[in-house]
Amino acid sequence: MNNSEYLYYFSKQRTDGNVSQKNILGGKGANLAEMTSLGLPVPPGFTLSSEVCHAFEANDFKLPDDVTRQIREAVGQVGQWLGKEFGDSKNPLLVSVRSGARVSMPGMMDTILNLGLNESSIQGLIAQSDNPRFAWDSYRRFVQMYSNVVMGMNHSMLDVAMEDYKADHNFKSDADLGADHLIEITHVFKNQIKEFTGQSFPEDPWEQLWGAVSAVFRSWHNPRAMTYRELSGIPTSWGTAVNIQSMVFGNMGEDSATGVAFTRNPSTGEKTFFGEYLINAQGEDVVAGIRTPKNLCRAEGGDESLEALMPVAYQELFEIQKKLETHYKDMQDIEFTIEKGSLWMLQTRTGKRTAKAALKIALDMNEEGLISETESLKRIDPNSLDQLLHPSLDPSFKKTILAKALPASPGGASGQVVFSSQKAVELKAQGVKTILVRTETSPEDIEGMIASEAILTSRGGMTSHAAVVARGMGKCCVVGCDEAEVSYSKLKVQIGERTICEGDEITLDGGSGEVILGSVPTIAPELGGDFKKVMLLADKIRRLGVRTNADNPEEARQAREFGAEGIGLCRTEHMFFGPNRIDAIREMILAQSSAERKQALQKLHGFQSEDFYQIFKAMDGFSVTIRLLDPPLHEFVPHTEIETEALSERIGMPLGRLKSRLDQLKEFNPMLGHRGCRLAISYPEIYEMQSKAIAEASIRAIKEGIHVLPEIMIPLINSAEELKILKTLVVTSVTSVQQEMESQFEYKVGTMIELPRAALLSHEIAPHADFFSFGTNDLTQTTLGLSRDDSAQFLKTYVSDGIFSSDPFVSIDQKAVGELVKTSVKAARNFDPEFKLGICGEHGGDPESVNFFHGIGLDYVSCSPYRVPIARLAAAQAVLKEQDL
Amino acid sequence: MNNSEYLYYFSKQRTDGNVSQKNILGGKGANLAEMTSLGLPVPPGFTLSSEVCHAFEANDFKLPDDVTRQIREAVGQVGQWLGKEFGDSKNPLLVSVRSGARVSMPGMMDTILNLGLNESSIQGLIAQSDNPRFAWDSYRRFVQMYSNVVMGMNHSMLDVAMEDYKADHNFKSDADLGADHLIEITHVFKNQIKEFTGQSFPEDPWEQLWGAVSAVFRSWHNPRAMTYRELSGIPTSWGTAVNIQSMVFGNMGEDSATGVAFTRNPSTGEKTFFGEYLINAQGEDVVAGIRTPKNLCRAEGGDESLEALMPVAYQELFEIQKKLETHYKDMQDIEFTIEKGSLWMLQTRTGKRTAKAALKIALDMNEEGLISETESLKRIDPNSLDQLLHPSLDPSFKKTILAKALPASPGGASGQVVFSSQKAVELKAQGVKTILVRTETSPEDIEGMIASEAILTSRGGMTSHAAVVARGMGKCCVVGCDEAEVSYSKLKVQIGERTICEGDEITLDGGSGEVILGSVPTIAPELGGDFKKVMLLADKIRRLGVRTNADNPEEARQAREFGAEGIGLCRTEHMFFGPNRIDAIREMILAQSSAERKQALQKLHGFQSEDFYQIFKAMDGFSVTIRLLDPPLHEFVPHTEIETEALSERIGMPLGRLKSRLDQLKEFNPMLGHRGCRLAISYPEIYEMQSKAIAEASIRAIKEGIHVLPEIMIPLINSAEELKILKTLVVTSVTSVQQEMESQFEYKVGTMIELPRAALLSHEIAPHADFFSFGTNDLTQTTLGLSRDDSAQFLKTYVSDGIFSSDPFVSIDQKAVGELVKTSVKAARNFDPEFKLGICGEHGGDPESVNFFHGIGLDYVSCSPYRVPIARLAAAQAVLKEQDL
Repeated sequence: MNNSEYLYYFSKQRTDGNVSQKNILGGKGANLAEMTSLGLPVPPGFTLSSEVCHAFEANDFKLPDDVTRQIREAVGQVGQWLGKEFGDSKNPLLVSVRSGARVSMPGMMDTILNLGLNESSIQGLIAQSDNPRFAWDSYRRFVQMYSNVVMGMNHSMLDVAMEDYKADHNFKSDADLGADHLIEITHVFKNQIKEFTGQSFPEDPWEQLWGAVSAVFRSWHNPRAMTYRELSGIPTSWGTAVNIQSMVFGNMGEDSATGVAFTRNPSTGEKTFFGEYLINAQGEDVVAGIRTPKNLCRAEGGDESLEALMPVAYQELFEIQKKLETHYKDMQDIEFTIEKGSLWMLQTRTGKRTAKAALKIALDMNEEGLISETESLKRIDPNSLDQLLHPSLDPSFKKTILAKALPASPGGASGQVVFSSQKAVELKAQGVKTILVRTETSPEDIEGMIASEAILTSRGGMTSHAAVVARGMGKCCVVGCDEAEVSYSKLKVQIGERTICEGDEITLDGGSGEVILGSVPTIAPELGGDFKKVMLLADKIRRLGVRTNADNPEEARQAREFGAEGIGLCRTEHMFFGPNRIDAIREMILAQSSAERKQALQKLHGFQSEDFYQIFKAMDGFSVTIRLLDPPLHEFVPHTEIETEALSERIGMPLGRLKSRLDQLKEFNPMLGHRGCRLAISYPEIYEMQSKAIAEASIRAIKEGIHVLPEIMIPLINSAEELKILKTLVVTSVTSVQQEMESQFEYKVGTMIELPRAALLSHEIAPHADFFSFGTNDLTQTTLGLSRDDSAQFLKTYVSDGIFSSDPFVSIDQKAVGELVKTSVKAARNFDPEFKLGICGEHGGDPESVNFFHGIGLDYVSCSPYRVPIARLAAAQAVLKEQDL
Repeated sequence: MNNSEYLYYFSKQRTDGNVSQKNILGGKGANLAEMTSLGLPVPPGFTLSSEVCHAFEANDFKLPDDVTRQIREAVGQVGQWLGKEFGDSKNPLLVSVRSGARVSMPGMMDTILNLGLNESSIQGLIAQSDNPRFAWDSYRRFVQMYSNVVMGMNHSMLDVAMEDYKADHNFKSDADLGADHLIEITHVFKNQIKEFTGQSFPEDPWEQLWGAVSAVFRSWHNPRAMTYRELSGIPTSWGTAVNIQSMVFGNMGEDSATGVAFTRNPSTGEKTFFGEYLINAQGEDVVAGIRTPKNLCRAEGGDESLEALMPVAYQELFEIQKKLETHYKDMQDIEFTIEKGSLWMLQTRTGKRTAKAALKIALDMNEEGLISETESLKRIDPNSLDQLLHPSLDPSFKKTILAKALPASPGGASGQVVFSSQKAVELKAQGVKTILVRTETSPEDIEGMIASEAILTSRGGMTSHAAVVARGMGKCCVVGCDEAEVSYSKLKVQIGERTICEGDEITLDGGSGEVILGSVPTIAPELGGDFKKVMLLADKIRRLGVRTNADNPEEARQAREFGAEGIGLCRTEHMFFGPNRIDAIREMILAQSSAERKQALQKLHGFQSEDFYQIFKAMDGFSVTIRLLDPPLHEFVPHTEIETEALSERIGMPLGRLKSRLDQLKEFNPMLGHRGCRLAISYPEIYEMQSKAIAEASIRAIKEGIHVLPEIMIPLINSAEELKILKTLVVTSVTSVQQEMESQFEYKVGTMIELPRAALLSHEIAPHADFFSFGTNDLTQTTLGLSRDDSAQFLKTYVSDGIFSSDPFVSIDQKAVGELVKTSVKAARNFDPEFKLGICGEHGGDPESVNFFHGIGLDYVSCSPYRVPIARLAAAQAVLKEQDL
């Protein structure tokens, strides 16, 4: 270990780091150290820790003097071990400079190779390799790469220059270029760089090194890197490490090669060594796809395989990969280079894999005795399960991407663009598949969302109405597509340069957020045996119950297939939007007296009772939590002139009076308005009808032998007083039905805790409730004073700037919102240690949040049907994490 | 004391209660007991405590058996003491039944006299009084009063019957009616009652008593009583007491009388015994105003005074009132009856008085040695001071009231109705006084609010934009006038049956909330010496600083006159609405790049700097807290098609692009949207400009010898990270100006705590702030999930139903919002015991809330200029309350 936290060697002679230090050495650096310690052949070098990144930022984005001093020392040391010297004209030390963050990050500066070459040291490389063409080609590549990444040189200018040169000399491919040509090209490059950037290409290898290292640290703040971090929830404060490593060359001739490999198949999970390589090439050639790489193993690559052509090196590599997988106990993604027959390991890391492969590998490794059963469970990213549950777009299809927005609900779907629910319903009836495109959806669009294949909105975030409802339906949805300008009047949407009209076909990819022109074929989901095995294992371990948010029998049935143990949130308002129902609810809203209101509600009564009965049937034996009416009434009224006029005629209310009443309903901040239990305080008739409908449905179901466990939930409670009044109302209504129908049943009456005041006053509220369910969506909105419908745009900056560590609507803000939940849990359990507690916000399907809810002792989480498997696995992982502590 | 909590005697023989038991005996009952204990002549009786009211409600609004049993016993006991018997035909006990809540409450059933009379006991009364006409008139009155109040008889039907009878007999006045006529009339009454109500008038005196007592308890839930409680913040849970007292008669002849008196003049506060009486009359005659009462004292009433006509009784009364005032140490409002020369005291209570009288009486009593200096301060209701600061409507003027709405800002004003700011400004220029009528105001209306005399809105509550801004300006304002239907297009407002057009004159009374047709003369405010004395006394005692919320130099100057010690909230956005400024801010909003934004901001820079300079000048020597831009940007953009088109032309932006940008700005919940410091995270240029303008203004003022103490305040902070970023921005901007202008000055950078998250994370935020100012308006909105703009209507029910004890936007919700403030205070003071803490929400001017803020140790409160005196007095009272503990 160095005397500072800055610099960590990896070499036969001295290795400071190990794999446990990824947080400061980055994944690449930590693994280089680990491989060196395992005695594998790794070119020596050292890692600049993420502390250097912080020092660099703190020093106004310049390398501090003590850092450059230590790097000079270390480069000297590595040279000494290899008997080389940096910039030497006889035996020059050449290095690669690579970024290496804690997790791999696209968008950052990746690699600069061959650093240390200049007009003098090139002579040494020629002497060493006895291959002037190789040496000048290396220099040419270095100049091209360095000038682009560090000096901001336009990449294509140099490409054009090279093409011009080849054309002038009638050369067809790079292979036709000899050493002399490459010398000329390198100098042409240097001149153009000078001209374009105003700076000479650096001759001093130290200057080259400072430039490259600084560029890596700066690239941490690239827009692309920031976007990636934001999408992946990686804090900016982590910073990146940099690896400086002595070069080895896969392009020193036909006895040299370079390649990448996986210890198992990353796509299927099969236990087969799998990889590709190129003879006489540098690593970038494999990645860049200029030459087509060959398969490593004879089984697939035949005579062109590494196994066939370099059997000794192959055998060594095969043993190393086995050793690595056994050591790391996970599938590895490795990079290697063979320099004049000698194998060098350049990287190992845990390999990315499809969800399908993840399941298979985890289960296989357990069976092989490599990892324990619980370890295999820990290996699977709960979020990845989503991939398995939805149809996905055929990845081999060539797509025209129109825009990329927020991937709100996974899956892939194609269809004709429609701009209204009505049109979607109309076309559905004709068997036409549609994509519903809106600026934003509202409960009025539910019918259209059901009828369409997928939903695209130009506004809203990951927890907007469209996103939440679509996830609930398991329907593909892309939201917040800024580039899309929707015009309802002209029935078209402008996306960038393209105009898409009603009837045009588009495709949405809910996994990537891509909006694609035309139709793309899809692949159906396959819930194989591995999925089931993992789920059963998770169920064995988890303590937390997993329920679902479901508003109708179809969703309820779907959720049970995915393993939901009851409904944690059944939103009754979605039931009001049916064509026979919406006018009845509107009449109720427009009623002038309690009697008129009751009359209108009477029309809905039968529908509600039937809805509840169907849901009870689908959830036979499980609890069903029904939330009484929650949204403000204006969500149900018409919003356009035409609809208003039509309504006026249908219900026979003069247009003037209707409009004036609709005006009265408008609210500046509906989220904080006349909704939830406040409606029932004003109009008790609504909850009375709903309670009676629940009671009737329960008794009807019981008579058919169905086991019903209704939990009636009152939303937006702020005080014990509200709950007292409304609980009495509910109990009185249910009792009256029980007496009338001469039948009893057990039920609970509880409340949502979704306002800071309710959380703070839970000690007063708990004695009047049979259960609490935390509505963490609204609790997040109020605690943070942040509208989820309006914040999508600026929240991005908040996450990318590190003000929030992640989107608080996706993963619960543990510091404040979580603290309020804890306060409430404590109060409730203080009142009754067995007090029933659940959560039904969107956070119920987020693994981080599930872990938090497990930790604070909730009884269950409830999430949309398609997130039920995720929550089950996350709940099991929470138990395992707890055991690890 | 009884064996239950139900029944309390007051009599020579036994008195159970005393004045300290107002909470259960009501004011009237407690004072009857107290007077009895003082040895004053009080007709014996007993009080049913408010516990009976609760028992009555709990028993399904019927008197429980043990209550009726105890009442029977007590009535027997009182009869025994007086040698009379209830319902007796020889010597009947007659009683009065009066309601008596903790505080006097209009709208409730008040009094039933002569109860116990029936066809049999009337004979006893005739024998006792030797006056059949008196006896039958008493019975007639009883039947009339009882049937109306208890049996729901239409009052005017009996009046008409009596008028018919007189007409048939050619009688001109009641005095012409003899005993026989009154017998006939009484029987006519009874027949009509039977016919109309279906019930016979009860003969059984017990039945009469149960009816009367039940009616009192039921009247606690009268709509009028509920409305009164709601407006006065009286919880429904208090309930009322009932007093049952033996009758004395002021109408037994020329040696009998009845009257009311004040120990001092309730209007001016002068120390003179003051009252009115009628000879040969019952109490109701004085109140009803049928006969004109005479003055008690010879000085005013001359030969017709009680002093002249019944000198002995007068002298006794005079001594009693002196004794009462000395005993109660406060001005008393008393009721008495003289029966055949004997004086009987029927009531004493602390007398209501004008604010002016309150000041004088408190100061005088202190000078007289009756009360201490601090006691005199406690005596004054801080809220009443408001009366003194505003012009008021001439109370003698006969008004046509159009509607009654929420009294948002006091004072009275008349003017021509206008519906737009523009019109108000236009007419103001012509010297025409206007009343601005809007559905609701927005910051765009500021110019019009300044130009008009008063503001009326049809929507919004006591803390709506109109209300808050008007109070800040000290301008009369009435809001939430549901009956008013405003039509901007037709330039008229429909209020009930009346149509008021632009140019029609109306008058608003901001003290009562009345909207009055036509013009009403006003009386100018007079800040006499008493006001000053009280204020200085308050300043000597209070610990809490009192600052003001002021957005311009005029307000700042006004507030200093009222004693403000600095500005606690200067809202910079109001400065953007000037005619030369609004387009600049709009250009800034519509800018596509940082450079464009800066260019637009440059235009505002000079205005802001000048504004701040003027405010610093007005507040020379005092701190000025300037809040950087807070509202969402869409508040500044045009909202109508015409304005949008005009803007498009003025700033040269194509209409389509302008509209699409305006659309993007729209928010579903602006309160929770892109505002406050979130704007500055997105567009740092705004705060940069504002900080520089503050710095320039400070340096300019300092150079002129003005002592400036700027405190720059960042709104809507949610996390330490936001504050860190923005504090750096502010400090960098200020420093650059200081360097450029080569001048230094001291300033602070702090934050508002107005979101639950900020309160909960204050321990993280405090280290980055020089001060906290609690924005309790927004903190209330978010903690309760309640929009102040949308909740006015249903909040009424919440208060009247006792769900909230008072409007949380008027008096701080101590349980939850207060708890968050406490949490934050604790965290800040834990970081630094001297941490500067203030509050700048509307609660800063509410006495209850001021008491709370004193208790938790804030340094200052800040409120609108016209509430500064209220806060000063309330702050002093808070100290005194603390000392009493």
